[in-house]
Amino acid sequence: MTNEGWRQLYDQAIKWTKEAGEYIKKEMVKSFQISTKANQHDLVTDVDKGVEDFFSKKLNESYPEHRLMGEEGTAENIHDLKGTIWILDPIDGTVNFVHQESYFAISIGIYQEGVGKIGIVYDVMHDELFTALEGEGAYLNERRLDPLQPVNMEQAILSFNAGWILKDRRLEKLVKQSRGIRSYGAAALEMAYVAAGRLDAYISFNLAPWDIAGGAVIIKEVGGKTTNYEGEELSFLSKDTLLAASPIIHEKILSEIDK
Amino acid sequence: MTNEGWRQLYDQAIKWTKEAGEYIKKEMVKSFQISTKANQHDLVTDVDKGVEDFFSKKLNESYPEHRLMGEEGTAENIHDLKGTIWILDPIDGTVNFVHQESYFAISIGIYQEGVGKIGIVYDVMHDELFTALEGEGAYLNERRLDPLQPVNMEQAILSFNAGWILKDRRLEKLVKQSRGIRSYGAAALEMAYVAAGRLDAYISFNLAPWDIAGGAVIIKEVGGKTTNYEGEELSFLSKDTLLAASPIIHEKILSEIDK
Repeated sequence: MTNEGWRQLYDQAIKWTKEAGEYIKKEMVKSFQISTKANQHDLVTDVDKGVEDFFSKKLNESYPEHRLMGEEGTAENIHDLKGTIWILDPIDGTVNFVHQESYFAISIGIYQEGVGKIGIVYDVMHDELFTALEGEGAYLNERRLDPLQPVNMEQAILSFNAGWILKDRRLEKLVKQSRGIRSYGAAALEMAYVAAGRLDAYISFNLAPWDIAGGAVIIKEVGGKTTNYEGEELSFLSKDTLLAASPIIHEKILSEIDK
Repeated sequence: MTNEGWRQLYDQAIKWTKEAGEYIKKEMVKSFQISTKANQHDLVTDVDKGVEDFFSKKLNESYPEHRLMGEEGTAENIHDLKGTIWILDPIDGTVNFVHQESYFAISIGIYQEGVGKIGIVYDVMHDELFTALEGEGAYLNERRLDPLQPVNMEQAILSFNAGWILKDRRLEKLVKQSRGIRSYGAAALEMAYVAAGRLDAYISFNLAPWDIAGGAVIIKEVGGKTTNYEGEELSFLSKDTLLAASPIIHEKILSEIDK
């Protein structure tokens, strides 16, 4: 595909993502009018499915040669990254979606022969759209994101679930050394925050390709690094751990947990 | 003051809070155009001071008999809660303000003879305004917040800084029992989230009156509880620990840490 072709695909993917966001908001309002918290699990299943069907239909119509790897069922047929693949999480942060009615995102990574070309993370309720087109910079809404600045660990804000401390006590060193720990409960959003400089690192021990495919493209575009927790390259084909960070902090964390 | 008088004060305080929010946003844009991250500490000091001066001036003009207890210097003269006191945090979440340019709030609690009458927490960047007038319900923007629903610990989302785990290992029990842990790094915001049902509890070990005075009024209005971590009433005159939660979770946490 030409650069112009990728630019068109990028604009198209953003347009569809915003449409999907509108659909989610409408479904939420409908549901909250008629149901209680107990019914919200059906809602998340329905909306997850609805968003994935929406993208599946759009791809069939406009880009029938593109493949879709989604959380809702379409993933099981994907065993390689050949050709053009859309890696989609219709609702990243489903617990937040159900419990908070906020702090969830649509996440899309479009990969060409395994290389991330387009990344989109859309915080629907706060209307924050993080995007990147390979080689063309990353954006938060209309604002171009700066390349990540070097920071020391003492200045760094890290993000991981407090539960991981119980699984890996080495994280306690990071708690002590860093300026602060945050946790938002939505991997795609936390990766977008790394790209935006709001966080200097995000760590998780159990994520699927669709949780991270969009964020990884955006982070790369501002000079950040995305690997697993051992510092190895991600396959985007199976579950793995994650360490997404600005370069110096990425290195610092790997050397700390190696000690 | 009559009910009508409190309603007018409530409307006035909200109007000023939004004006202060606009001021903060303007100062941020100005600053980000001319300075680097290193200069952001001066910005937070200036803006903190600017917002407090703004409210101080407004009170002198319109309510000269009201007292102001603020983070920036006006606190040291307040040794009791007699009369009408505005307890103000111009920027709650200063680390977020500097580092994230987001996730900070203006927090105001207006207390009459020690009783919380008005609570305001304004997430400036996300334009989420949490408010309550005693006896008249709590709101998130135009939407009235529901009374807090009973939840079990297994369903509950709790919020505290991962660093507190290192100071009090009893928190690890809560990590294991609950559905998830979040941390946003801004006490007033996290208390507002408890009121909105996004979180079922927020715990901190070191907060000042101005961090919590606004949130406490909002939480009470939806049936939640705000005490220190020992379950004792807060004085709003000195630093203390905090446990703000929906009633059942409040009780559960106290009994867990008591074991």
